Amino acid sequence: MRNIKMTVAYDGSDFSGWQIQPGKPTIQGALADIARKLTQEKVFIQGAGRTDAGVHALGQTINFKTNSALLPLEFQRAFNALLPASIRVLGAEEVERDFHARWSALAKTYRYRIARERIISPFEWRYVLHYPYPLDEDAMLQAARLFEGQHDFASFAASTGSGEEDADRTTLREVYSAELVRQGGELIFTVRGKSFLRYMVRKMAGTLLEVGRGKLSPPFIRELYELKDRSRSGPTVPPQGLCLVSVEYPAAWWKVPAASAAAGEPPVKLR
Amino acid sequence: MRNIKMTVAYDGSDFSGWQIQPGKPTIQGALADIARKLTQEKVFIQGAGRTDAGVHALGQTINFKTNSALLPLEFQRAFNALLPASIRVLGAEEVERDFHARWSALAKTYRYRIARERIISPFEWRYVLHYPYPLDEDAMLQAARLFEGQHDFASFAASTGSGEEDADRTTLREVYSAELVRQGGELIFTVRGKSFLRYMVRKMAGTLLEVGRGKLSPPFIRELYELKDRSRSGPTVPPQGLCLVSVEYPAAWWKVPAASAAAGEPPVKLR
Repeated sequence: MRNIKMTVAYDGSDFSGWQIQPGKPTIQGALADIARKLTQEKVFIQGAGRTDAGVHALGQTINFKTNSALLPLEFQRAFNALLPASIRVLGAEEVERDFHARWSALAKTYRYRIARERIISPFEWRYVLHYPYPLDEDAMLQAARLFEGQHDFASFAASTGSGEEDADRTTLREVYSAELVRQGGELIFTVRGKSFLRYMVRKMAGTLLEVGRGKLSPPFIRELYELKDRSRSGPTVPPQGLCLVSVEYPAAWWKVPAASAAAGEPPVKLR
Repeated sequence: MRNIKMTVAYDGSDFSGWQIQPGKPTIQGALADIARKLTQEKVFIQGAGRTDAGVHALGQTINFKTNSALLPLEFQRAFNALLPASIRVLGAEEVERDFHARWSALAKTYRYRIARERIISPFEWRYVLHYPYPLDEDAMLQAARLFEGQHDFASFAASTGSGEEDADRTTLREVYSAELVRQGGELIFTVRGKSFLRYMVRKMAGTLLEVGRGKLSPPFIRELYELKDRSRSGPTVPPQGLCLVSVEYPAAWWKVPAASAAAGEPPVKLR
């Protein structure tokens, strides 16, 4: 079987999240429907991260196995012709058999946008948290840096559900970088890590807001790692400000060489 | 009665257009509901332009008459607190009694966006026409210039309905400027004029596309003014690419001086 990898962007506003749910519009469901139409096979769409309802993606990554002879570019064009405009396939390539969108990922980057203007554009509300009230941005910046490193993020886990990575039950995670920047009228919180617990990024952003409001102090972030108590951290902020920006994988050796990509063609002896 | 003028922006995606229609979500209806709540009066919201379903606005302008003592800034804040996030009041001021959002307007500017990239962002499809096929942009530019000036735009009128300005039956209109520019991956058509017939800007954009595809030649625009036949011009392109950018009015003399804005206060004799 061939293994097809795709980079997918979506506006999550009109979907009940990534994961297939009967009778509800989901990203995974929309992709699976089209993969099945195109291949006449029961295709399973593996995503790198399971985004929640209302969460967006600029660089979600998926893979699926198929016996279809369609070339990656043909898959991409067919998906884009059949998918709703809210989901776009930005790239497609054939990869080695053992490539797995979730388990092969080296790092994922999520971004949370907080709009600080008094009035926000009617074209932006689907993509930001509107918070026009006073915030101590310096304290928030200090706190954001304390998310970096390997910590027990139990205080930032969902109350129910298994978390984005449910194969292990540990709440230990490594955050490679956590940055807060001011860009125009927005505060943008960007985190990069190997994997995240469910709601973890939104709980981190909610905790930063509590720090900004003076309800929590920056060093309290460190105490939260000890407390392992999600009721002591900030709230889970709304989903629409969150976006899965990119997923990183080991470099080009995953790609199947172009020769073998000409699937079905028997080798021709050179004279 | 006091006369309140407001500048309003909206994402028209989720509305059945500007004009109140029973049982349907409209911009005028949403604004009128809130004005009535705030004033306890039967307020009529006058708009500068009646945008169709799916059309957006960055600078729609409205006015309404009221006996309420609320200051313009109080009106603005109350509207923004009660309106859906897809409609925002960007500014409010008290104006002279005879100011009329539609009849006082000197000029309106509309913009139509055509996305030329092969794949468009899932965050942009609500705001552009996606046209990734070949176009002769030089011919379109030539044709766009021929829209400028006073012409009979009967070939660019709606087949039914009375047109945006229905008080007169003439199809004679003056276009102050018509520009086509390339900006990033987009072609942007911007027209400024005193008033427009219903669908006129979308028919103009549709005609430019026919010129770009080589189906019509630029000088044919002039013939269309003579033909007065809407079946000979291009199609009415979809609404989502269209935006009412701004409405211009005579300068500051419309504004009521701050002193008289302190409504209800009796004059105080200076000692």
